[in-house]
Parts: sequence; C-alpha cells; structure tokens
Amino acid sequence: MIDVTRQLAAFAVSAPPEAFPPQVRHEAKRAFVNWVGCALGGSDHPSTNIALATADAFSGPRHASVLGRTTRLDALNAALLNAMSSSVHTFDDTHLTSITHPTSPVAAAAMAVAEHRASSGAEFLHAIVLGYEVMARVSNGLTQPPAQYNLGLYMTGICGGIGAAVAAGRLLGLNEQQMVWAVGIAAAQAAGLREMHGTMCSGFVPAQAARGGVLAAHLAARDFQSAERGLEGPKGLLHVFATAADPAIVVAGLGRRFELLANTYKAYPCGIAIHPAIDACLKLALSHRPDPDQIEAVELRLHPLGLALTGRQAPSNGLDAQVSVYHWAAASLVHRAAGLKEGSDACVQDPAVIALRERITAVCRDDIPPDGAVVVLRLRTGQVYESRIEHCQGSSAKPLDDCALDDKFRAQAEPLLGAGRADSLLRMCWTMDRLEQAGAVASAAAAGSGSPVA
Amino acid sequence: MIDVTRQLAAFAVSAPPEAFPPQVRHEAKRAFVNWVGCALGGSDHPSTNIALATADAFSGPRHASVLGRTTRLDALNAALLNAMSSSVHTFDDTHLTSITHPTSPVAAAAMAVAEHRASSGAEFLHAIVLGYEVMARVSNGLTQPPAQYNLGLYMTGICGGIGAAVAAGRLLGLNEQQMVWAVGIAAAQAAGLREMHGTMCSGFVPAQAARGGVLAAHLAARDFQSAERGLEGPKGLLHVFATAADPAIVVAGLGRRFELLANTYKAYPCGIAIHPAIDACLKLALSHRPDPDQIEAVELRLHPLGLALTGRQAPSNGLDAQVSVYHWAAASLVHRAAGLKEGSDACVQDPAVIALRERITAVCRDDIPPDGAVVVLRLRTGQVYESRIEHCQGSSAKPLDDCALDDKFRAQAEPLLGAGRADSLLRMCWTMDRLEQAGAVASAAAAGSGSPVA
Repeated sequence: MIDVTRQLAAFAVSAPPEAFPPQVRHEAKRAFVNWVGCALGGSDHPSTNIALATADAFSGPRHASVLGRTTRLDALNAALLNAMSSSVHTFDDTHLTSITHPTSPVAAAAMAVAEHRASSGAEFLHAIVLGYEVMARVSNGLTQPPAQYNLGLYMTGICGGIGAAVAAGRLLGLNEQQMVWAVGIAAAQAAGLREMHGTMCSGFVPAQAARGGVLAAHLAARDFQSAERGLEGPKGLLHVFATAADPAIVVAGLGRRFELLANTYKAYPCGIAIHPAIDACLKLALSHRPDPDQIEAVELRLHPLGLALTGRQAPSNGLDAQVSVYHWAAASLVHRAAGLKEGSDACVQDPAVIALRERITAVCRDDIPPDGAVVVLRLRTGQVYESRIEHCQGSSAKPLDDCALDDKFRAQAEPLLGAGRADSLLRMCWTMDRLEQAGAVASAAAAGSGSPVA
Repeated sequence: MIDVTRQLAAFAVSAPPEAFPPQVRHEAKRAFVNWVGCALGGSDHPSTNIALATADAFSGPRHASVLGRTTRLDALNAALLNAMSSSVHTFDDTHLTSITHPTSPVAAAAMAVAEHRASSGAEFLHAIVLGYEVMARVSNGLTQPPAQYNLGLYMTGICGGIGAAVAAGRLLGLNEQQMVWAVGIAAAQAAGLREMHGTMCSGFVPAQAARGGVLAAHLAARDFQSAERGLEGPKGLLHVFATAADPAIVVAGLGRRFELLANTYKAYPCGIAIHPAIDACLKLALSHRPDPDQIEAVELRLHPLGLALTGRQAPSNGLDAQVSVYHWAAASLVHRAAGLKEGSDACVQDPAVIALRERITAVCRDDIPPDGAVVVLRLRTGQVYESRIEHCQGSSAKPLDDCALDDKFRAQAEPLLGAGRADSLLRMCWTMDRLEQAGAVASAAAAGSGSPVA
C-alpha cells in the first residue's frame, strides 16, 4: 500500500519555496489576486452577512480580519467567513480535473493563520502552493479514472479541508507526524453535497472546509492523533468516497508536476460548465444583436457533464441560477453581458429573461469538449444563427491574463474601497512575496470598509 | 418524490411532548443518565484534554459547561467537548439498525443550547427525543435494505449533525422552514470515516457533529437558507451516501413508532460488536478459571459484520483496542473482567494479554446473530471448553435495566465527584423532566471537578 498520507505530509512540511519554479510562485500570486477580489466581491452578500452575524456571536479572541468588513473574528471563524465570501458568487478559481475550487478554502485558512501568527508574505504564498497541490491531488484521486465517485459529492468540500489543513499546518510549523494527523483530522471532517448548489450552503461548504482545516492544524499542533492512513487506508477518504480509486495517482510527480499551473480563473460569476454557452451566446448577441422577442428557440449543445452539473431549468434567484445554464444563456442574449448584474436576483426574476429562458433547450453531445459549446439560435423570421466555442474564456486553452485578473479585481474591489484604495490593495497583492507580514493585506482589505455587524 | 426533509422538519417543530408515550420519555431519561455518566468518564481522557485546550484558545462567550471540568466554553465548543468526552471510551449508547451512537451528538448539542438559553428540563428531554428519532431514521435510510452504503462511512458522523441540529433547533424555536434549512446545513457538514476508529478522531467525529448541528440551528434561526431537499434530493445525503436508498423508510411510522425504544446501552467500553465475544469469554473465564498460560488456542466465531468492524489484530493502545475483538477477548480471559481498566493502554500493552491475544483466531459465521458469539477455548491439556452467547449483555434482548445504568453512572462519576456528589447528580438526571433549567445538570456536573486548562 502506497503511504499517500505520509508522502503528502512529508512534502507539506519539508518542500522549500526555492524548490519550486518561478512560474509556480507567479501562479500563486495570480490565484491570490483573484481570491482577494472575489472575497471583496462577496463580502456583503446576504449569506455572508448571516454567517458573519452568527460567527460574531460566538467569536473568540479577534486575531484575524474579514476581508471587506470591519468586524474581526478569531482565526477559525475568519477562515470560515473569507472562504464563504470568496466563493459565494462562484467567481473563484477552478482546478478542472479535480472539479474543485481550491483557493477559497486554502487561502482563507492560510490568511487567518498568517495574520494570527504574523507569517511573512513569502511563507504565506508557499503555504498556499502546498495546500493547493495536496488538495487538487487528493481530489484527482477521487475524480480521475479508474476512480468512480458519486457526482453528488461536492469535491471542494470533500478535499478543501485537507488543503486548508496543509496550508495552516505549514504556517504553524507542524512536523511530519503532526501533518499526517492534520490531514487525517481534516479527512474526518470531509463533507459536501451538490444538492446545496444554488443555495446559501454552496458557499458554506468551502467555508466549513477552511475552518475545519485550521482547526485540524491547531489540534495536530497539540498532538491530537488521527489515523496514519486517513487517505489511503481501507476505510479512508479515497476508498469511502470513490469505489475504485488508485492512490498512486495522488502522489505521482509530487513536487515536480504542479497542479497549480493548471489553475483557471472565471470570466463569469457562475458554474464553470456554463461558461462555454455564455461565450457562444455573447458572440451571437454581439454579432447579430437579435431582439430577444424575435428569438423563437435556442438550442444549447453541451458536454454531458456540463449539463449534469448546471441543468437547473427554472431558478428562483441569483444563487439558484449559478447552476442554471438556461438562465445565463437567456441573460447573455437579453443583456449582451454576463457579469455580477446578470447574476442578481433582479435579473433572474426579470420577465423578459424568463420568457426567453423558457424557449431554450439543452442537449448533451459527446463530441463537445468540457470547455466548448454550440448554440443554435432560430429567429421567428426563420433565420438561423449558429455559434461554436472550442475553448471558453478562462479555460486552460484561453486563460485570463494578468491584466484580465486586474480588471476582474477592480470590478469587485472598487465599489467597496473606491478606485484609489482598490489600486493600492491590488499592488500589495502582487508584491505579497515581499511583504513582511501577509496579514497586512487582510487588514488593508478590511479597514474602513463594510459595516460592523448589527 | 417523498418530501422527507420537510416531513422530518414538521415533526421536529410541531410534535408536542404529550403526544409521545410515557415509555419514550422514560427511555430519554435512561439515555440521558447514560450520557452524563459517559461524559464524566471521558472528561479527562487525553483526547478530551487536547480538544479542550484548543477550544479554550478560540472560545467565544462562555455560556455553557463542559461536564467534569471547570472550564466553560461558548455553546458551539461546549457541544463539541461534551460529545467528545461522552464518546471517547465508546461507552455511549447505540441504535443498532442504524449503526449509530445517537445520544452523544444529540444530547451534547441540546445541553449546550439549553444551558445557553435557559431551557427547561422537559423541553430538553423532548428535544433529545426529536433529535434521536430524526438521526436514527435518516441513518436507517442509509443502512437498511434496499440501501447499499460504504462500510467505511462512520454513521454517527454522517447523521449525528442532523440529530443535533433538530434538537438544537427545537430549543431555539425554529419554524418549519428554518428547520428544513437546519437539516440541510447539517447534511452539508455530514462527515466521518471509519478509518478514524481507534484514534483520537473517533471521538472527534461525533464531537464535530454536535458542534455542526448547533451551528446549523443558529444559522437557520437567522434564515440562512439551504436545500429544500437536503436528504432526498437527487444529490442529497440519502443518494450520495448510499446507492439505493429508499427515502420512504426514513419517515415510515414517524411519531408512532419510536427508534429511541430500541436504544441499547453498553456493558463494556468498546465497539459493540465485540460485546458478545466478551460475554462468552467472561463466562468461560469465570466458570473454568483457566490459567492464561495454559490456553493453547481460542477461536472466536462471530457475525460477519462484527468481525469487519472490530477485526484489528494488534492494537497499540487503548483507543486502538476499541475496535479489536482480539484484545478484549484476551483481556477478558486474563483479567476475568472487561471495564475501563481492561481498555487502558497498560492493559493493551501488557505482555500477558498480548501473548494470549496472539493465540486467538476469529472466523465469520453467517448463522451467528449480530449480538451473539461462540468461543471455543482449547487448553494445552487437550481440554476444550465452548461458550455460546445468543444475546449479549446490553443487547435489545438483554437490555441494561435502570439499576445497571445507575451502577455504570456511579463507576464513571465517583472517581471525579466522590460518592455523595455523584449520587445527587444521578438523582438530578432522573428528575430532569421536572427541572426548571436543564443546564443545572451541566453546571452541577462541572463545578468543582476537573482542573482548568493549563
């Protein structure tokens, strides 16, 4: 039996930052910039507000910041809040093969610990890389062949706590045995159901993962023991959440091949499987500018998994619409845009959008790649337009570049901080590796913005 | 589709105490007495000590007691600690068909909320009944035919948070919609791997369930929304954690047939599947008083599931031995007893016990019931003794009576509180239904005992 848990723990405690190529360190910064922006963008969402009021009532010593808010919380609750706000618009990053959104739980856990323990920016970024690698690899073990897993598992929740524990544990200076336990304690909390998608709980699942990971690291730091083989043991995570997992996949090329380099960033705030259809609809909308009333029917041709994950037909609000390719196709055609506004409750409940949505059908096509889509639009005049997307914006083949990430950051930060503060925060994020204290970013993102909990 | 989540929520918020038969209310008291005793018995276990030190460092307002300790914690952390201490010796109760230990998470959650909110003893007991029923029923849905579930799932963790949320939510006065959400929020946190058995994490899993349930109830009380069909939805708990669950099983006879009446109480502090073998070994040991050195070989004939759950062959310490039928058979034969002492590290590491353990073999027999066992003992003289247990002590067929529960309580409470205080606490427990404040029991069990966190 391959000792997967121990190999990951050894990697997490001993890999030095300089062992990783510069592009890995740069990608960690890109992931971080995107994460801070998303945390600000979701910092006053109704679900964030409720979670913050609840956490505030039970908070211990307030060592850590909540991005975009003035309320401070203990490190466990701050990790929870920042992971929730950064994932609530489903605008955070995606690791495609593992079907996870790693940076929300990993960075939220690392930031809370870094602020509490005054870790440096370089230590923080390295902890994010380690947490990301371990999380994505464990999830690959569950989602990649030969593993068979239940599509109802919400993988960011199942594996996010492990990544969070690794990042937090690295910053707490765990030794190898303690890191084995931290991974096990996190595995013991691994949770998440896709039934929660489209509800406030879809942000709560990564939030719990972040908090659980920080807790796991703190317990392990005091020698709270767990299984030695929490991942690969016969009743461990890999075999309980998949029927035919190959543990070797998890550690193949560890420290030489980096999952973080396959990280992707979303151009639109909704389920990633919806994005190719949005691209195709926007292309048609902007080229032909059809009057929505004149559209008789729209056919979406999608990759089968894409439709399985995002096939909600009649969403009732913005959260619900995050997994509705129907809503986003309709909104893109009506508004010729697909930003936070098109994901609002108002847009989802707009009669014009609903009317068009009801004329949209979606079919699965095996010959369409996961990041591709075909949209066929038929006007009442009989005119037919077709648009084919091979690789959507934000996919591995067409990644958002650093400038696009800057734009995405500003769009989320400026409404809260104003242009000047948003810009200076953005510059801090890009120089994280040279900051004496990583937590300075969190406090800069918190101070003076938002409002205290009522 | 049966609306299981809503039916359970409606039951949880509206069933009046007087609708339940007196024997249900009495059984709730028995479960409570057993739980308080176990919480005291585990209150200074090393894993409890680490968890308490960690929780203490992050605790918010200290509204709730930790049984057997003087440190108070916020209600979420108190729920965590009391569920951990009460399950750490695996001496807590068992609902057999669902393979769960319901009272640890349910009572710990209810007690923390009751103390925080000054609920009455009658309200508290009723909340326990409701939480127990919902938890056991959901777990039945996963473990009973036609459901197929992965034996690596630790069912107390998977379903405990739901029971805890129901009990906590009832005491917080949730309405039906909020209770639907509380169940969903708890389902989103459902976690637990059997790989953790025999480690400190085996008590941590029910502990997290208790804490998660209280959190779910508090979030729902502020209208934090979750899935409407967190249990029976296509990507909900019943279908993610089992491949062929029949949701109808969960609600069949709800409010008319009581799972609590099938509750069982352990005579020995180890995995319940080990108990029939202990009974059989004790019978042989006490009847024939064999010299352990003279025992050539011991064959245990067990129910197949029993061996699957407790087949650890060479445990290294007391926690590890909780799932080792080999250790407990050996210890019972060597010491002619099977109490907390026989579960200690010292006994597990005793060369005399190990030497005998290595001469024990176990085989599965389909004709042996889950609460039965046959033990065949062969002496070096050639003499062979056989002992057959049809139903072990503490099984449904041979339940511990109220006096036996009193004895079990005193054995765990007296070392901590002394005989006088233990006795008065026991009397308080049996009169819980008449106490103005349920929390009085928790503070009586806490004050003056244990030592503050270092």
